[in-house]
This record gives sequence, C-alpha cells and structure tokens, in this order.
Amino acid sequence: MEIDEFRRAGHALVEWIATYRERLARGDFPVQASVAPGELIARLPKSAPESPEPFEAVLRDLESLVLPGITHWQHPRFFGYFPSGGSLSSVLGDMVSTAFGVVGLNWQSSPALTELEQVMTDWMRDLLGLSSRFSGVIQDTASAASFVALVSARERSSEYGAARKGLQGGGAPLVVYTSTQAHSSIEKAALLAGFGREYVRALDVDEEFRLRVIDLEQAIRRDREAGLRPCAVVATTGTTATTAMDPIEPIAAIASREGLWLHVDGAMGGSAMLLAEYRHHWAGIEQADSIVVNAHKWMTVAFDCSLYFVRDAEHLVRVMSTNPTYLQTAVDKLVRNYRDWGIPLGRRFRALKIWLALREQGAEAIRSKIRRDIECAHWLAREIERTPPWRCIAPVTLQTVCVRHEPAGLDGKALDEHTRRWTQAVNDSGRAYLTPAVVKGRWMTRISIGSEHTSQRHVAQLWDLMQEAARSSAAVTGRS
Amino acid sequence: MEIDEFRRAGHALVEWIATYRERLARGDFPVQASVAPGELIARLPKSAPESPEPFEAVLRDLESLVLPGITHWQHPRFFGYFPSGGSLSSVLGDMVSTAFGVVGLNWQSSPALTELEQVMTDWMRDLLGLSSRFSGVIQDTASAASFVALVSARERSSEYGAARKGLQGGGAPLVVYTSTQAHSSIEKAALLAGFGREYVRALDVDEEFRLRVIDLEQAIRRDREAGLRPCAVVATTGTTATTAMDPIEPIAAIASREGLWLHVDGAMGGSAMLLAEYRHHWAGIEQADSIVVNAHKWMTVAFDCSLYFVRDAEHLVRVMSTNPTYLQTAVDKLVRNYRDWGIPLGRRFRALKIWLALREQGAEAIRSKIRRDIECAHWLAREIERTPPWRCIAPVTLQTVCVRHEPAGLDGKALDEHTRRWTQAVNDSGRAYLTPAVVKGRWMTRISIGSEHTSQRHVAQLWDLMQEAARSSAAVTGRS
Repeated sequence: MEIDEFRRAGHALVEWIATYRERLARGDFPVQASVAPGELIARLPKSAPESPEPFEAVLRDLESLVLPGITHWQHPRFFGYFPSGGSLSSVLGDMVSTAFGVVGLNWQSSPALTELEQVMTDWMRDLLGLSSRFSGVIQDTASAASFVALVSARERSSEYGAARKGLQGGGAPLVVYTSTQAHSSIEKAALLAGFGREYVRALDVDEEFRLRVIDLEQAIRRDREAGLRPCAVVATTGTTATTAMDPIEPIAAIASREGLWLHVDGAMGGSAMLLAEYRHHWAGIEQADSIVVNAHKWMTVAFDCSLYFVRDAEHLVRVMSTNPTYLQTAVDKLVRNYRDWGIPLGRRFRALKIWLALREQGAEAIRSKIRRDIECAHWLAREIERTPPWRCIAPVTLQTVCVRHEPAGLDGKALDEHTRRWTQAVNDSGRAYLTPAVVKGRWMTRISIGSEHTSQRHVAQLWDLMQEAARSSAAVTGRS
Repeated sequence: MEIDEFRRAGHALVEWIATYRERLARGDFPVQASVAPGELIARLPKSAPESPEPFEAVLRDLESLVLPGITHWQHPRFFGYFPSGGSLSSVLGDMVSTAFGVVGLNWQSSPALTELEQVMTDWMRDLLGLSSRFSGVIQDTASAASFVALVSARERSSEYGAARKGLQGGGAPLVVYTSTQAHSSIEKAALLAGFGREYVRALDVDEEFRLRVIDLEQAIRRDREAGLRPCAVVATTGTTATTAMDPIEPIAAIASREGLWLHVDGAMGGSAMLLAEYRHHWAGIEQADSIVVNAHKWMTVAFDCSLYFVRDAEHLVRVMSTNPTYLQTAVDKLVRNYRDWGIPLGRRFRALKIWLALREQGAEAIRSKIRRDIECAHWLAREIERTPPWRCIAPVTLQTVCVRHEPAGLDGKALDEHTRRWTQAVNDSGRAYLTPAVVKGRWMTRISIGSEHTSQRHVAQLWDLMQEAARSSAAVTGRS
C-alpha cells in the first residue's frame, strides 16, 4: 500500500472504528455473534486473490461478513469470561507499534522497545504496590507467563537440569501444587514443561473457594514421604470461576520453609491491587518468586499484554537465555535483552499501548473504573440476595457475581439444565452475554463486570433480563 | 478516550504514521538507533501520571523520545537479521483487530476470529504449494511454533506421557536431532520441553551449511545402541546465518523409517515456496509432521504472525487441549477451538492482517517482491565475487548474502576484528544496517535483503558503503 493510499484508507478506517464503537454504545449489535458454525467460511473465496482489490471492497466485507461473526467484548453488556481492556488510547498505542514494524530481538534491534517496557513495567509494579525487588517484563498472555514460571521453578529445583539431562535424568519426580480453582493454564503449563499430570496436585478449596493451607502442608509431607520432590506452588489472586483469593501469606511461609517456588496468578484479580484498600488480599506477596497480572483484562490496556514480575531476574535469564552470535551486540552487558525473559525471540513493542493508556487517562481514572465495577457487582449481589429463589453462590470479592436461580423442587441435573437454559436464553437474546461454569459439581452463572462503558444502568438491564429468562425457563419445568 | 477524541487523535496518528514512512523512504533517519543504553529511561518520569495528559503531549514525546530509540526495520537500507513485513495494509488489518478488542478463547468468543484464521491459513497453505492434508493455525512466533512441535513429538513418542508422569517416568530418554545451523529457538524449545541439552544433537553440516544426512543416520544408530529413544528431527528451510536448505526428502525418509517427528523450520525460507521455481527445495515436505513459516518475515504481513501447519490436527489438539467448564459451549464438536492448537488461551484476531495484506496487494505482488529481493541478492553477490579480496562465504540461496573482506595477510583473530570493525562502521554511519554472525568459527557479515521498499539502488548504495568501510578498517591494520 502506497503512503497516499494509506492516508486515505487509514482515515476511513479511523471513522469506521469510531462508528463501530458508537454503534456498540447504542446497542446496535447483539452482544453474542449470531452466526452458525461454518457460515463465514462458506462466504469467503476458496483461494487468495491474485490481483489487488480496492480497500473499499475490504471495508464492505468487514461490515457484511466479519461483523456478524464478532462477539462484542467491548459492548457495555458483555459480562462473559472477563473484561478485556480495549480503551481507544491503547488501540492507538498498539497501532504505533505495528506501524513501526520493529522486532525486539535484543536491545539494539530497537532500544526504545526495551527501555519503554522496562519503565512501563516499573510504573505498573509501583502502582500495584510491589517493591522494587521485582523486575518486570511483558508477556503475551498469562498462559505463557505461568509456563515460564513453572519452567523457572523446575530449573531451580533441578539445579539447572535443562543444561544436562532435563527431566530425563531419572531423579525423584518434581511436584507442582495448586487448587482445584486454578486456571486451566496452570495444569497446561505444567504438562507442557514435562511434569506430567500425576505430579500436579489440584488441592481442595474451602467454602470460599480458597486453597486450603492445611491441605497444602499435608500434600507436601505425603509427597516427601513418597520420595517425591515438591517444586512449586501456584496461588491465585482472583480465580476464574469466582475471583476467590488464595491466602498468599501462609502459602508463602510454606513455600519458603519447603523451598518451593511461589507463583501468584493474578491475571484477573491482580488489577484490584491498584486499590490500596484491596492490598490485604496480597499480604505476603513480597515473598512470591513470580507474579502475573494481565494489563489487558481490567486495566484498560488492549489485548495482548500480560505483566510478569520476578524477584530474581538473573535466574530467569539463566533459564531462558540463548546467545547465538547473530544476536550478540557490543552493549549486551549494559542492557536488558528481553528475549531471555520469555519464550519468543521476536517481540512486539507492547509497552506503547500501556504508555498511551496510562497517559491519556491517568492512573486515578483506572482506579475509579475498577471501583465502579466493584460497586456494580455489589449492587447486583444485593438485588439477587433479596430476590429468592436467586442466590449468590460465592462471596463477591471483586467484580464477578456467581449466581443460581433455584426454584423450589428443582435440583440435581434438572437444576443444571435450568441454569444453562436461562443463561443461554440471555445470550441468545443478544441483549447481554454471560458465561456459565461448574463449581463443586453444579452449574452456576458468572456475571463478570468491567467492560469500559458498563454502568449500573447496564447491570440493571441485565438483572431484568435474567429474571425474565429464568421465569420462562422455570415455566418449562413447571416450577417457579 | 471518548469517541470524538479518538477521531481527532486517530486522524492525527494516521498522518504521523504516513509522514514517518515518508521520512523513512527519504532516508531522514539513521537506520540504527543512535542512543546510548539507559538514555530513554533517564528521560522518562519515574512514575505513572495520576491525571490525564493531552494526546498532543504523547505525540510530541513519540517524536522526541521514542523515535531516536528506534532501529528502523522498515527502512529501505535495513539489511539486518531478516526482513520484517510491515506493509501498510497489514498495519490497518492489525488496527481493526485491536479495535474489536476480542479475545479468541474458543469459537463462540468470536466466530469470525476462528473462521477467518482457518480460511487465511488455508489460503496460505495453498499458495505455499502444500496439500490439504495440512491444517493451519497462527502462532505469535516461530519460537512458540517450534516449541509446540517438539512437545507434540515428545507426546507421540511417549504415548501421551503428559497425562501420566510426563518426562519423569524414568523411561529411555528421548532425543532431538537438528543441525549446528538450526535457529537458537530450536534448542531453547527442546530445553523448555524438558528434553535436556544432553539429548539435543546439533549435527554437523556440509560445505553448503546443510544438515548431513549420513550424520543423522549415524547419530540415530548410536543413540539406539546406547539405549536412547530418537524422537524428533528439525530440518531448516533457510537457516538464519546463510539461508541454507536442509534436504527434506532424505531426512523425511529417515524420520519415517525411524518413527521420528519431522518438524520443518521454514520461518525465513518458507516464504520462497510461494515461488513454484523454488519448491524443489521442499521436495518431501508432504512427509513433514509440522511446518512453520513466518508470514511476518518475507510475506509483507506485520509482526507477529507465524503460520504453523500440521498433518495430524487431532494429535495437536489432544496434546494441547484443556477443557474447563467455563470454556465449554454447545458447538464445540462442530468447530475449531484454536486455544487447543498452541500455548495461549487468549488469542488476538491476527488473521485480519493477512486478509488485508493479501487482498490489497494480491498474491502475485508478493511473489514479485520476493523475486525482486532474490535478484538484488544475486546482483550483490556477483559484484562481490568480482571484487577481491571480497568473498561470498556461502551460496546465495535466497535473499541473504554472506560476505567477508579478506585483505592479504589478515587472518584468525585479526580478520575477525576487521570484519566486525567495518560492519560496525557501516551501522554507525546510520546509512545502512547489517548483522554479523559466526559460521565455522569465523565472523562474517550477513546482508539480508527484503525490506518493502528496498530496490537495487539501495543495495548498490550499501555496496559502496561496505567498500568504503572495509578500506578504512583495513587501513587501521596496515593491510588492504
């Protein structure tokens, strides 16, 4: 694309995006995409065009083919999964990154990429109340960050076994501990790193869905007696299903005593630590070996942008580094080479989107937004609790409300069916989007609040919608 | 950022980017950033702003603080590392992706994200001459793709050991084979996956830097005799240092006979397979188990965008899948859930930047660009070969020329110093950027051609610059 054409197309696209966001705010789209599987595939050509097509044709297809297949995460009534920061200032920051088209292989390959990342992770670390003992790096996702954490743990326990026989040396097996409520990426990370499922302990949780410290101690003792080597524990700050907070302080004490790596998965809940009044949930955090907080969830920064903090950066580099001659430069001893802080060699200039989001809004605005979301969640929880047979099935710790509508006489499988039916009805209405999940063997529905433009009005509209959907579903069963 | 402010700032940014690219084309910037380590860090505030700042202030800082710290990969005289596709149409495609702000956790979380990715990887597969036995997915980088490949190999050899004791079961150790010229990410991937460096064989290469098939056979035999289990072989299509082509066909025959996973790292050279006349380098490719080709290198698509193709998608999903209840949907059996095709759960809508790049240019324009770069490389190689004491130290297979200036009487360490000195002088001039590397124990300099606007004129300018720099450097030593 020539530069003049880029000017023309770029301006048209800025207008298209602005209009898209206006239409979202007006509620022009169903929140959940309403297409059938394979619908877009069937409408696209079977092969790539050989000749150029006008940009207008692409813009038309964006509107008529792609848009219907979008589930609108930036919609004010998107309450599924988790909020995904998509502030327009961070969108612009990301655009600059792509336009520079630089690849961060080492410091020299674009010094600003490395140094702005260093400063942005420092800013974020300080805003989160972590001390300067931690050093930060941006990973794409928490999945990757947690994988890096477990590999770091493996290498510490094995005295850098990767440089010798890896996990194939036949020593006592290493074990990873976490809770049943940990994110699926934790088990996946352990399996990718070669631990094996038999050496991953998913410990039971208490009535508030928090890891039971006593179970952790017992499991470690049992494993030591069986000749295994406890290696790492992963605690969660804000679990996926209910945003429960594992107690960091006693877990850290055990980790320290037993020589375990402590990784804290604060992908979702970590953002709440921007608020001083929530930091008691993080008591003991300074003892963590590694922490991940997704800036792309609740901090208004566009996906993908995971903040990964470590206490011992030298260890991380020793574990992850490669140093082929084609990447060596004269300044290597003076600078950070972030390729040695994660999996990929090539890295995007992600710090720009944090920089723009923070400067355009200011940190206080992000804190206010988080407080607003938490207040909305508490408002909804109060409404639910005074409206039987609705019930909150977990404490509202942050911005997620876990509910069940429990008509008298409905239980077991029938109750599960009812829960999934009314949730599906809400989603199919296109007027809001929710995701259900199983906790303690029963389906419930999560309302995850935090889209940029979600206000109490939208939550109230959702609450009406839920009641209507539950009534209709209960009528099917003959209960109410 | 409110929508009207986004309009204003977005249009200003489109102009800024257009002007940036114009300045690049005019040669207004030194190719290599000329800042000192820590310079940007020192100029940035120590903490995040509490209050909003005007967008104009950010734009000013982008110009005065960030730009000097950029090494301009999109500059027509950027000849370092590898070309990084940054076509402006793909920049726009990426902007749409960020503005949608959707996260591809599963098909339902945005059906268009999954289905466009499916179609784009099919288009690319067909353009590369691969059969429909292969299924594609987009990974962020080849580092991640090769890691996924080696984990897939590990799991096939171990009969899905991850579901049991992982690599900690004490069986005969698994071994990975590649060449000394393989990319550093291959060893890193093997180490991350737990194999251990003692079980990674970096085999010697022939005089054209290709893996020696006979050495592979011998190494496998020796390892079997020692009670080890050969697991995977990684062949490279276009090595990093010299773009050498490992012979796929005989390697595939051995892999098939011995039950090894064959992964082909075509991160750089794979793009050349868009040209039918280069496909003889890929004879036997249909026997590969997995292939990676970076669309963000030589295919004009903005970083990051790695195409990963597998023959057995079911195996990949079985190895990488997680299925927590909060991700389950009613259509899971009918659709692809790409989270089970790689490491991260959350995925960007990367297919959009391929879509825009292909439609705006047409496939034939990308082929022409690749041919242009290869012709430039051959032109330079001819110039070099008729100008002693310059010498090409590797065959010019694609768009990379590997050179040494060897003044009479200069060898060993002194020659290395001369090589690094004149290369550094070229880089320090700001008029072009090159990266040196060691092959067979000696430093040489790589000229990697392929930036979007690089023409023969720019290569000729580089050639003049190289001769000038080498003359000055040789004068230091008293040789010429």
